[in-house]
Amino acid sequence: MKQERVPSNVITKAVRRLLLERGVAIEDIADIVYDMQSPFTPDLTMDVCIDNVNAVLEKRELQHAILVGIELDKLAEKRQLSEPLQSLVEQDEGLFGVDETIALGAVLSFGSIAATTFGHLDKVKTGIIGVLDRAKDGRVNTFLDDLVASIAANASSRLAHRVRDEEEREKNTEKHGTI
Amino acid sequence: MKQERVPSNVITKAVRRLLLERGVAIEDIADIVYDMQSPFTPDLTMDVCIDNVNAVLEKRELQHAILVGIELDKLAEKRQLSEPLQSLVEQDEGLFGVDETIALGAVLSFGSIAATTFGHLDKVKTGIIGVLDRAKDGRVNTFLDDLVASIAANASSRLAHRVRDEEEREKNTEKHGTI
Amino acid sequence: MKQERVPSNVITKAVRRLLLERGVAIEDIADIVYDMQSPFTPDLTMDVCIDNVNAVLEKRELQHAILVGIELDKLAEKRQLSEPLQSLVEQDEGLFGVDETIALGAVLSFGSIAATTFGHLDKVKTGIIGVLDRAKDGRVNTFLDDLVASIAANASSRLAHRVRDEEEREKNTEKHGTI
Amino acid sequence: MKQERVPSNVITKAVRRLLLERGVAIEDIADIVYDMQSPFTPDLTMDVCIDNVNAVLEKRELQHAILVGIELDKLAEKRQLSEPLQSLVEQDEGLFGVDETIALGAVLSFGSIAATTFGHLDKVKTGIIGVLDRAKDGRVNTFLDDLVASIAANASSRLAHRVRDEEEREKNTEKHGTI
Repeated sequence: MKQERVPSNVITKAVRRLLLERGVAIEDIADIVYDMQSPFTPDLTMDVCIDNVNAVLEKRELQHAILVGIELDKLAEKRQLSEPLQSLVEQDEGLFGVDETIALGAVLSFGSIAATTFGHLDKVKTGIIGVLDRAKDGRVNTFLDDLVASIAANASSRLAHRVRDEEEREKNTEKHGTI
Repeated sequence: MKQERVPSNVITKAVRRLLLERGVAIEDIADIVYDMQSPFTPDLTMDVCIDNVNAVLEKRELQHAILVGIELDKLAEKRQLSEPLQSLVEQDEGLFGVDETIALGAVLSFGSIAATTFGHLDKVKTGIIGVLDRAKDGRVNTFLDDLVASIAANASSRLAHRVRDEEEREKNTEKHGTI
Repeated sequence: MKQERVPSNVITKAVRRLLLERGVAIEDIADIVYDMQSPFTPDLTMDVCIDNVNAVLEKRELQHAILVGIELDKLAEKRQLSEPLQSLVEQDEGLFGVDETIALGAVLSFGSIAATTFGHLDKVKTGIIGVLDRAKDGRVNTFLDDLVASIAANASSRLAHRVRDEEEREKNTEKHGTI
Repeated sequence: MKQERVPSNVITKAVRRLLLERGVAIEDIADIVYDMQSPFTPDLTMDVCIDNVNAVLEKRELQHAILVGIELDKLAEKRQLSEPLQSLVEQDEGLFGVDETIALGAVLSFGSIAATTFGHLDKVKTGIIGVLDRAKDGRVNTFLDDLVASIAANASSRLAHRVRDEEEREKNTEKHGTI
């Protein structure tokens, strides 16, 4: 391979820029995480949710999924995909599932529970997911709404696992004094 | 392999018997399918939902998942699993995900859209899924509630694909007369 | 939705045309299926393998995956993807996994055994898969080689299930006379 | 929930004990990782492979999969599963795929590339995987051979990602002096 490999930080920056460009702020995703996890973690703060969204956005698997999905949305918006793919993506056709596949692939990194959370968010379209889904006037978010559900599900799962680890550590400290 | 292979019809019968034994009727699952699909298919009947549940219950992948899941539930109920697995299954521990994995594996046979439907049903616990989830008095349904969500998601996906095929056939007949 | 939905037969034709255009004949894929399944089915013929490839190419989930994957390969070849995605796809970068995700999504429709067959083909790059993988001179097959592995794995799995069903039917006929 | 939750370290210990009890040493799995990754990482040592196997064995998702799979193997060995499941597991029936599903679920945590590595190992049965697969005299390893393939695939994927991160860090140091 003669070409230079793309450094990780270039990809991370591109992913964050693309999300903002398409109207998705980190806080919008953190809102969904808060919604999903606050019933189980009563003292949850938005800061912790934001931290978990930022952490999952560092994962290569998810970053690559975001790059591909947003590229396809943008190409469809500019009507630069070949037919019949252009129509399938543009119409967000009910039985077209590649958007779900890509988002689901990225969500499985955080376990099967992240996968069920993703499925749920994808149906009820909480917060920004619904905003993206209902966008009109030539806007195409066929892939993006699923990707945001995936990011939120991953961050929720990461948070749940961390909360558990924390609880166990505290319990050990109670039992044994300082560790 | 000296042993005789288990014939398909023996497995099909065992699956149907086990579902009934654990309190799940075909109609209970068809109710969920009706709930999920009637918004998209206004003239949907319960008979069609029942047919689709019956059809997906013929699939080997799903049958095997059901056999394994119900076996583990029953063993946990009789406290015959080894520790620490016994406690994990008995408590339906929030971060235990093998039940979701097995059910998700069976649902992927019907595409990524079936997977999101499954995730949703697994969270909102529609109909019989909720009844199973809330069962008490030593009853263990850790695997079964996910399996029922999987069967219902598969049947919903199968139905949606068939409805589409039917619509296309009708359209062709309109255009070209009888085919 | 004002726009007309794309009819299934238009998609089927597009998929077949695209495979040929990218240098993949149905026989090339059937060759791989023959390779995988002939050890288990001694009297297997190429015709049966071709039939099974044709049958899985009728599946919407797989068709959509092929449309998306080949589109991305062609765009990368024409250097029409945005950076850094253009470089990731063009270089078939070792840790880029969206090609595997899309192909794996399509393969799970045929069960977890199809998934392991896919993984194997993706590593050893049997037949046409290897030809695609080694293509040079600006040719980009990042997605296509995985998609061909997926089609072959699906057809192998479909064939194995059918062979089993056939064996069971024959056994029943022996036992009970004509059915 | 009245019952005490099972602490993570109890699960980790149980998993390590079970693997040993069933004849699988960490070194056996590290051997497979070395085999898979040494072509890409010329100065790879066995110590690094062992570290990566140990690290993935800390993951809840994989731990739970191991607990369930080995339990089912042991129950089948003692002929304590109900029919027809007992026969399906005991015979490691070719079209029974729940073992692959459970192992695949655990492997997806490490991305789609781990999934293809898993599929490959599951077919070629490298090292200890083949030993387990060929075990006789009433030994049942239907789930264990897939689980070992899953552990090895996860450790290989983790190692590949770490090696890349390391290379990027070194490159940055060259460019910018000490960081």
